[in-house]
Amino acid sequence: MYLYGNMLDSIILNALNEDVGTGDITTETTIPADRIAHGLYKAKESGVLCGVGVAERVFKLINPDIVFTAYKQDGDRIEKGEIIAEVSGKATDVLTGERTGLNLMQRMSGIATRTAEAVKQVEGTNAKICDTRKTTPGLRVIEKYAVKVGGGTNHRFNLADGILIKDNHIVAAGSITAAVKSARANAPHTLKIEVEVETFEQLNEALEAGADIIMLDNMNCEDMTKAVGIVNGRAITEASGNMGDRNLAEVAACGVDLISIGALTHSVRALDISLKFTIQ
Amino acid sequence: MYLYGNMLDSIILNALNEDVGTGDITTETTIPADRIAHGLYKAKESGVLCGVGVAERVFKLINPDIVFTAYKQDGDRIEKGEIIAEVSGKATDVLTGERTGLNLMQRMSGIATRTAEAVKQVEGTNAKICDTRKTTPGLRVIEKYAVKVGGGTNHRFNLADGILIKDNHIVAAGSITAAVKSARANAPHTLKIEVEVETFEQLNEALEAGADIIMLDNMNCEDMTKAVGIVNGRAITEASGNMGDRNLAEVAACGVDLISIGALTHSVRALDISLKFTIQ
Amino acid sequence: MYLYGNMLDSIILNALNEDVGTGDITTETTIPADRIAHGLYKAKESGVLCGVGVAERVFKLINPDIVFTAYKQDGDRIEKGEIIAEVSGKATDVLTGERTGLNLMQRMSGIATRTAEAVKQVEGTNAKICDTRKTTPGLRVIEKYAVKVGGGTNHRFNLADGILIKDNHIVAAGSITAAVKSARANAPHTLKIEVEVETFEQLNEALEAGADIIMLDNMNCEDMTKAVGIVNGRAITEASGNMGDRNLAEVAACGVDLISIGALTHSVRALDISLKFTIQ
Amino acid sequence: MYLYGNMLDSIILNALNEDVGTGDITTETTIPADRIAHGLYKAKESGVLCGVGVAERVFKLINPDIVFTAYKQDGDRIEKGEIIAEVSGKATDVLTGERTGLNLMQRMSGIATRTAEAVKQVEGTNAKICDTRKTTPGLRVIEKYAVKVGGGTNHRFNLADGILIKDNHIVAAGSITAAVKSARANAPHTLKIEVEVETFEQLNEALEAGADIIMLDNMNCEDMTKAVGIVNGRAITEASGNMGDRNLAEVAACGVDLISIGALTHSVRALDISLKFTIQ
Amino acid sequence: MYLYGNMLDSIILNALNEDVGTGDITTETTIPADRIAHGLYKAKESGVLCGVGVAERVFKLINPDIVFTAYKQDGDRIEKGEIIAEVSGKATDVLTGERTGLNLMQRMSGIATRTAEAVKQVEGTNAKICDTRKTTPGLRVIEKYAVKVGGGTNHRFNLADGILIKDNHIVAAGSITAAVKSARANAPHTLKIEVEVETFEQLNEALEAGADIIMLDNMNCEDMTKAVGIVNGRAITEASGNMGDRNLAEVAACGVDLISIGALTHSVRALDISLKFTIQ
Amino acid sequence: MYLYGNMLDSIILNALNEDVGTGDITTETTIPADRIAHGLYKAKESGVLCGVGVAERVFKLINPDIVFTAYKQDGDRIEKGEIIAEVSGKATDVLTGERTGLNLMQRMSGIATRTAEAVKQVEGTNAKICDTRKTTPGLRVIEKYAVKVGGGTNHRFNLADGILIKDNHIVAAGSITAAVKSARANAPHTLKIEVEVETFEQLNEALEAGADIIMLDNMNCEDMTKAVGIVNGRAITEASGNMGDRNLAEVAACGVDLISIGALTHSVRALDISLKFTIQ
Repeated sequence: MYLYGNMLDSIILNALNEDVGTGDITTETTIPADRIAHGLYKAKESGVLCGVGVAERVFKLINPDIVFTAYKQDGDRIEKGEIIAEVSGKATDVLTGERTGLNLMQRMSGIATRTAEAVKQVEGTNAKICDTRKTTPGLRVIEKYAVKVGGGTNHRFNLADGILIKDNHIVAAGSITAAVKSARANAPHTLKIEVEVETFEQLNEALEAGADIIMLDNMNCEDMTKAVGIVNGRAITEASGNMGDRNLAEVAACGVDLISIGALTHSVRALDISLKFTIQ
Repeated sequence: MYLYGNMLDSIILNALNEDVGTGDITTETTIPADRIAHGLYKAKESGVLCGVGVAERVFKLINPDIVFTAYKQDGDRIEKGEIIAEVSGKATDVLTGERTGLNLMQRMSGIATRTAEAVKQVEGTNAKICDTRKTTPGLRVIEKYAVKVGGGTNHRFNLADGILIKDNHIVAAGSITAAVKSARANAPHTLKIEVEVETFEQLNEALEAGADIIMLDNMNCEDMTKAVGIVNGRAITEASGNMGDRNLAEVAACGVDLISIGALTHSVRALDISLKFTIQ
Repeated sequence: MYLYGNMLDSIILNALNEDVGTGDITTETTIPADRIAHGLYKAKESGVLCGVGVAERVFKLINPDIVFTAYKQDGDRIEKGEIIAEVSGKATDVLTGERTGLNLMQRMSGIATRTAEAVKQVEGTNAKICDTRKTTPGLRVIEKYAVKVGGGTNHRFNLADGILIKDNHIVAAGSITAAVKSARANAPHTLKIEVEVETFEQLNEALEAGADIIMLDNMNCEDMTKAVGIVNGRAITEASGNMGDRNLAEVAACGVDLISIGALTHSVRALDISLKFTIQ
Repeated sequence: MYLYGNMLDSIILNALNEDVGTGDITTETTIPADRIAHGLYKAKESGVLCGVGVAERVFKLINPDIVFTAYKQDGDRIEKGEIIAEVSGKATDVLTGERTGLNLMQRMSGIATRTAEAVKQVEGTNAKICDTRKTTPGLRVIEKYAVKVGGGTNHRFNLADGILIKDNHIVAAGSITAAVKSARANAPHTLKIEVEVETFEQLNEALEAGADIIMLDNMNCEDMTKAVGIVNGRAITEASGNMGDRNLAEVAACGVDLISIGALTHSVRALDISLKFTIQ
Repeated sequence: MYLYGNMLDSIILNALNEDVGTGDITTETTIPADRIAHGLYKAKESGVLCGVGVAERVFKLINPDIVFTAYKQDGDRIEKGEIIAEVSGKATDVLTGERTGLNLMQRMSGIATRTAEAVKQVEGTNAKICDTRKTTPGLRVIEKYAVKVGGGTNHRFNLADGILIKDNHIVAAGSITAAVKSARANAPHTLKIEVEVETFEQLNEALEAGADIIMLDNMNCEDMTKAVGIVNGRAITEASGNMGDRNLAEVAACGVDLISIGALTHSVRALDISLKFTIQ
Repeated sequence: MYLYGNMLDSIILNALNEDVGTGDITTETTIPADRIAHGLYKAKESGVLCGVGVAERVFKLINPDIVFTAYKQDGDRIEKGEIIAEVSGKATDVLTGERTGLNLMQRMSGIATRTAEAVKQVEGTNAKICDTRKTTPGLRVIEKYAVKVGGGTNHRFNLADGILIKDNHIVAAGSITAAVKSARANAPHTLKIEVEVETFEQLNEALEAGADIIMLDNMNCEDMTKAVGIVNGRAITEASGNMGDRNLAEVAACGVDLISIGALTHSVRALDISLKFTIQ
């Protein structure tokens, strides 16, 4: 995934402004302006690395003269104790960006790690693991990137680039049939139409209305298997609803094409990574 | 805690722009513009509620005519199945803000809930639970607010409003003594000086240098108890370092004044809350 | 089409800042601050009105006390000489917003009018008229809205919400087959895949690769008819390439589903509308 | 004309954000990240080129490593089929900026071409062709630049840098005399005062009040000639009002100093320019 | 002078963000959220009031429910001890905006007071007092407004709305004649041309070149009087250069039309104003 | 003091946008685009230099190719007539940034000079000179930097990074005791608590409540000496209240630790510095 620079920079500058405020008073008042620091990023637990380029960009935005050398890349499996990267530059600059870079890299690695675990659970099946819109407000672009790095795929990015008719739309539109028909007539022809269903009746209505994708919401395995049978290739099938707490191998065995998991991004455990200066 | 409106609005607008993009195509193409919707927020698990005012503000920024009625307030304990709030307005407006409001409220409630659990574990001791700078980039102001709502206290907000001399500062400054002396001479007189120590030698050096606060980093209980004894009221003591994985009652029993826990905000589990439309 | 307020306001404020600069010096120095003005918007030529709500919003952003009464709505056919709307308020406020409102409304009405003419030419066929990404930089959201108001449909909004493999992508990817395959594997499952073809060979390759939509680029009617026959319902067909200069009835008669016309937005003739104050 | 960088960059970044959205999904999913592309800009019709530096800047803002070589400069007459410029760089970067650069350059060239045609029509007279405030909201700075490139001159940039007392000001101020007197007393001494007149009575009043510039609004040639005679060098004269539809040679022959034409910018026909990749 | 809202609000919000930072920690932690405060603005020294509407706007941007009652208006002469305005609202809101409002009002009143003193010194002559571009970066719009409130007039607002050929332009252009000729040919016809001269030779060259305004730079009274005689009504004359340290009555007596004084804004003494809460 | 680049750049860009507006029309229309200029910054009066790096940054943001050579550094004492720096580059670029750079450097040097005078007056005592929040809205970061350069120290930066319980807080909170207690319980443990007192009664209450810093407001020397005696080392003491008009040596002799002076920043006299081009 190619991160269009402007979006990433705006996330980083926003984070830096938040964390630095009117100046890093500890660093400014304790460290000589010309002191050079060398630091090592080390994994304090094992997982899938993500965000190493983001951490580098944090420093480049503070001072382009900082030298950042990555020994591991996004997507690499890292083991506890391994060195990830090295950073050298004015101590004041490095300290100013330290926490912002770590906060981003740890979160992204946490997401990639969790995604990779999910992907592993469905290995050997046709099911893909994908994300949702339950991302951290303001960080969607890097969180969806982390899901990709972990081996997952991305669902629509936002409300503008995918049609997903959910329970509340159905209530407001009157029926699945009405909603699909209206979407077909008014939305750009470049978008598929996805419908969330909770019952077989809804499923049949959605298929008849011509849905391109069926989201099977909160179904048990028996129902899901039956639903996949009813669909029978006429639409893409997506299992959804608290998938973070489900046995993914079991869900995948129902034959769905995708399993979307909000917990990949709404309930992240940061991967522990440290940055330590070495004395020279 | 009083949220200065400008900061909150900028978080919400940023989140809305991210999630709505160029328009909510599903809603626009499936729901008549004049359809009115009524929706109920319901707790799908138990915890400490936080962010109900934030969810309301999301709607007000979309359309001030949306009516939002809160039945529970920030800080309230909510049980699974309880109704939290009610929202009425144009279906298109409500659907546009639904996910952004939920993403924020679920995250804030997750933080408040986890903080309340930590506070409960140290009940009856003098120790306070506090947060760190390991917050989600861009959301610090609402995450620190959630920690307060959960019964915790806040550490410094950013690098500008607190002096915390950590391992890397000590390496770069040469010694604890040099760093404290320089900070005392150059920083505003309104800020206390905190020093992170890992050994008793460092502890004694920090105390002699006149540190106002001592951060005891990654110590076991025996050492921490001994350290508190050495400090003997000459400074505030703060236990730190992977406190998210420690027995907090045990840590508190060492006599520290504060326990700071990065995991309160860097490894959040969102509290499950739903918004369902009712047919009228 | 529902215009998410934030996007429209940012266009208007940008336009106002550009046009007002550091203040409307003529108005400030010639008109008493308390003078009330009444003005009428009049069509100086016939066409399809669009942007009346935008003109109103311009005034509301300057001073919410300005009263704006619309006698015609977006999509209405207006005849030369007809009164469109009336505005009352402080003369200084009205004069400050006059040009910005007119510039936007005239441009939007120009687009709606031209679109309506195109739609009329294909009346009675299955072909829909749609827009492209050849919009005025910064105004896409209101220009695509104007196309809808004129009876057209919208193509993808931007590079993020539609997959369109064009000539340059094919060159860079190596082949149509490679490009479609890679897009299918890596893009969100919610997006259809469109391929631009210039020859029958390319057309067959695209269909075999499983393209959902085929863009027939710059074909004469004979070839286009033949192409539609080859597709035979296996994909949506879109005629494209200088369609602004083509006989649209003829193109539609080839059987294509859509005709996309860049000139709808890249070569606009503003509809002439005036605002005149009345003496009271 | 010297384009102050900040203003141009903000137009380009705004346009890129609008067009790229959350990422160029086609390019990202079909083209290898390291693929290098070479492309040629070719004129598909003849005209006056404008915006070649703007197109280059688009790429520089995406990736400074893109190499852009211009073979033609702003103001050059280009013939159908001529090569304008060449671009080389990562295919993903070039494709991301392709449309934004073309949209801007085509529009600017369209304005320059139309202006050059108008200038040609008045060749041999004293009349200068100038623009108005009827520019595209958000793009005024580059549109006024294009008018200059086409051989025209610029009227005031916005409401702050020129005094132009028009019909509505006269109504609101009570009379031309009152308006001119008040402007003279209150506006900066660095600005001339221009008055729009529709009748000879107004013309005489404006001259007596000491107007520096007279705008002759919507007059036929006979009246305009008579008006120029009345002015007799006491003020600059400017012909205005639907000049886009007038015989400009005839208007110039009336002896006016300037002819201002809104249609130069409000009713643009983009000049057709293509960018095609070459296979290497 | 009519302050276009957007510009003022952006100054105020910028100032509030700077002063409030991440929250008014004193107010938040010491004052109950529902406490109502009543405060009085009192003049602690005499002068010309300016900025009372700005102070009100500060509060409205914090909370529209704050009630602000002005007893004095911009331009009023206020005596030490007089009550200027009254404010009531939530104590937390009022305290948050207190300093920002005072900082702005005190500075603006300082400028208006100093301007009024200068105006008084030239009373009875034809000379007007005017400002320069030596304003506080970021505050020009309100500082130029304060000059007007103090009875002065405004010079050009910025580099875009006035032509002033100064010493460095003359060096770079080669000569006054070349510079004026080039400006006449290329600048909008709505702008007058001002030339700064230091010698009689330059003065004569500027007049011959057709300058509309002559800036007499750093001349003593004898030379200035002679210069005004040479100009003899052919151009507007403006005395300039350290006028803050000159005897203005003497300068005015030389017959110049304007005296421009950088010190009005670059060396301000704030007028002392206090805001005190009353106990209820 | 380390100026975090982002904050400085945003001040400069804001100032440039304000001063350049839509373009430097004089420079654009009088000076050939390729003309190179060489200019010298010269002190026109003596003082303490500050802002030389800021002036350089102004040019770098306009065009990185401008060469700026500083002969004096921030904090240097400069004498009338001395050369401060030299600038070379395109004349158009240098002229565009000239005034913005001078406005900033003159103001900053004015503050540094005034601060140095105050510091000199208290030489030989323990008292430090410090600033307040009475800074120019929008320029606080560079004004506080200038105070440091002049030898002073900084008080809190804004409302978020220091607790200062003033008269109005005491009124609103009910009592000093209540306010201090509440702040102690609710504010971050990293901040000291300062209390403003006007009487000995208040002083004693503040000390008993445990204030860390006492601000002695508007006391005469006798009372201040007595107050310092009462405090007797239990808190830091700060003299405040119109200190700009006081005999600072006398105030320092009372034994206070700090003297805070609003006039350092609210009533600045710019230091006169010129930039003159040399002919080559």
